[in-house]
Amino acid sequence: MAALNRMKAVSLVMVGDEILDGRTLETNSAYLIERLRRRRARVASIRIVPDRHEAIVRALSAAHSESVAVVVSGGLGPTPDDRTREALAAFVDEELVLDEELAENLRQRYHQRNRPMPQSNLRQAMRTTHGRPIENPRGTAPGLLHLCEGIPIILLPGVPAELKSMWEATAESIVLPLVENAAPRALRLRSTGLPESKAADLAKGVQLDPSLVELSFCVTRFGVDLLLTSRQESVDLPGIAQPLLEVLGEYVFTIGDRGLDEVVSEMLAERGETVAVAESCTGGLLGAALSESPGSSRSFLGGIVAYSNQVKEAQLGVSPQLLAEHGAVSEEVARAMAREVRELLGSSWALSITGIAGPEGDTSDKPVGTVHIALEGAEYSESRLLHLPGDRAQNRQWSVAAALELLRRAMSHPRPRDPSVR
Amino acid sequence: MAALNRMKAVSLVMVGDEILDGRTLETNSAYLIERLRRRRARVASIRIVPDRHEAIVRALSAAHSESVAVVVSGGLGPTPDDRTREALAAFVDEELVLDEELAENLRQRYHQRNRPMPQSNLRQAMRTTHGRPIENPRGTAPGLLHLCEGIPIILLPGVPAELKSMWEATAESIVLPLVENAAPRALRLRSTGLPESKAADLAKGVQLDPSLVELSFCVTRFGVDLLLTSRQESVDLPGIAQPLLEVLGEYVFTIGDRGLDEVVSEMLAERGETVAVAESCTGGLLGAALSESPGSSRSFLGGIVAYSNQVKEAQLGVSPQLLAEHGAVSEEVARAMAREVRELLGSSWALSITGIAGPEGDTSDKPVGTVHIALEGAEYSESRLLHLPGDRAQNRQWSVAAALELLRRAMSHPRPRDPSVR
Repeated sequence: MAALNRMKAVSLVMVGDEILDGRTLETNSAYLIERLRRRRARVASIRIVPDRHEAIVRALSAAHSESVAVVVSGGLGPTPDDRTREALAAFVDEELVLDEELAENLRQRYHQRNRPMPQSNLRQAMRTTHGRPIENPRGTAPGLLHLCEGIPIILLPGVPAELKSMWEATAESIVLPLVENAAPRALRLRSTGLPESKAADLAKGVQLDPSLVELSFCVTRFGVDLLLTSRQESVDLPGIAQPLLEVLGEYVFTIGDRGLDEVVSEMLAERGETVAVAESCTGGLLGAALSESPGSSRSFLGGIVAYSNQVKEAQLGVSPQLLAEHGAVSEEVARAMAREVRELLGSSWALSITGIAGPEGDTSDKPVGTVHIALEGAEYSESRLLHLPGDRAQNRQWSVAAALELLRRAMSHPRPRDPSVR
Repeated sequence: MAALNRMKAVSLVMVGDEILDGRTLETNSAYLIERLRRRRARVASIRIVPDRHEAIVRALSAAHSESVAVVVSGGLGPTPDDRTREALAAFVDEELVLDEELAENLRQRYHQRNRPMPQSNLRQAMRTTHGRPIENPRGTAPGLLHLCEGIPIILLPGVPAELKSMWEATAESIVLPLVENAAPRALRLRSTGLPESKAADLAKGVQLDPSLVELSFCVTRFGVDLLLTSRQESVDLPGIAQPLLEVLGEYVFTIGDRGLDEVVSEMLAERGETVAVAESCTGGLLGAALSESPGSSRSFLGGIVAYSNQVKEAQLGVSPQLLAEHGAVSEEVARAMAREVRELLGSSWALSITGIAGPEGDTSDKPVGTVHIALEGAEYSESRLLHLPGDRAQNRQWSVAAALELLRRAMSHPRPRDPSVR
């Protein structure tokens, strides 16, 4: 196998049968990725392997060959199926020796708690000949640092609280100087209302110099994020983003990390305006989004969850004739819901959603995914028909995003837009 | 590198820079592990690699050498940073060819929606010479099945909903016959209302034979799951679970995989009863939970999101005196909200939530995390005060779980329970 160029990044190896057979959800890698991301460092790869000697050795070898630091979690406990120390010893071709100081620490730990130390625990005091123990303030399993051809291999316990405290107290300061600033600088353009392929096509119209900047796409619960990254400090990312912003136009709802719900809440608060909701198929999900960020009580008043038609009639005052004539999933009912809830709650704006989220409830002329949303404001009235291709959960989520977007655009424009833009 | 004994299990390869640099939380592996676990199959290893040709090829090679099936997610989109197809072609040493049928399908998909197909999408119709496409009912990126020395390599998109639908429709039936039932048999007890440490302490009172059965804990959005696993066919897991069920008592809301929302919806439907909600700090999240599962319209009517006090007064009819005297976050207001919404909507049951989710809004006598929930039924009235220790999102989620649980317990008991049990 050809040697790779080493990435100036960290490779992670997670050890444990319990992860692979579904007993435990592995969360240590997400924690380490997030810690590293904040320091603009990144992870080169992650391997999750079973408690098998040869599998751990192989993962250590691959990880060591590709990056400038290797962090291993799990397999350091006192039981015979904890095999990470032995695998490290085999990989670096050293003996495991008893560290007398570690052994004494362990004995004292048990002594302080008036408990006899199980003999099996002495396994935890073993280290490679040239290895150095890493203190574990929260548990009995010490960590281990072994330098192999100048690359640190750091063994940490799999218990999340122990891994975290040892990472923050010791391991991070070993790793960061080796990888710092290896992660690209990034600028995120968040879009909504575009499928990923359409976003990619629009972006293609912009010539980006691949030696300066890379463009990637990421699907979110609101739509598609476009991420501009550069490994060069001098590159003007906001300047490079300009032509992208021009081709993407109004589909971009923010530059940065804020969610569409936050953007809408902040726009409302700045204008001193309020919003109310009337929801059918989303059952409260739009209200939940509008109240997700702290301080949203400045702009979100509340609303009516009119899941059943009985509530649409009795609480929202939608007329039985309208429901009978057009059906609950119709532009007319969506508009009536928004109008009524705005009047009832006295809000500046009102959003409504009525649709067929699926998998049940479709009719010949209204298939699953048919959703009407409507917006009412002072001298403002607009609605949209969506044909959503997802499952129940997705269709509900996308309906919420489309409703938020309807309001965002209305606030960006003084007048109703050209109705042909759908 | 020495050849390994192949495990009769599945190796997973997750492709994507966005996972490793922290933009996206990788959830596909947890989904696949859980699906396989239910069929008692297991995962041999997981590799998460960047969008780099050589890294993907290397991961395919390692995965192919160690297991009887390889499942790859990600890197199948239409953009140039989607490199999984090319890496597979390189690994199996074949050309990529345009699949005319796939290309035609893609064109038709766009045609049906009256949209021109972006030229970049044609990349998604490429396959290895001996590869076979896998239909994607939810998106434009088809999957790919390639047999390499009898070992299936299955490429699926990284978008979770697409991966799920293709796994369930096609890929699972290719993989399952090849893997052995090596994963432990499992029984899941789902609890709510207990912190993990308390659940562990209660479980400690039960003597389990570690040679027969293993117990692990997993935090969920409803509470804590206790998972009993055994590698032995003859072990009577339900029998072993009995003493655990006894010490955990009513904290266990189900044995199996259903969510608390599903359990409550099904209990309501069986009784022919309905529920309405009145929500303040959760802003609609309880309604969203009660309408999450298909068919919930049989039991969930809707409700009032009374985020502002103005809505509590005008729509719910909570008296201004009550609000002034006790504050919006009080047992009295929670009870009034539930009573009023039940009357307004004519439901069998009504649940209410009012509290301080945080991080703002605390007062000296009502710190962040103070939440009152109330339940009203025919001749039934109960409330609970919660002191929640989480952040805003957790506190809202836990409030929803506590409200659902209040209703579940009420339906399990003919009379209000001892009020000292809180």
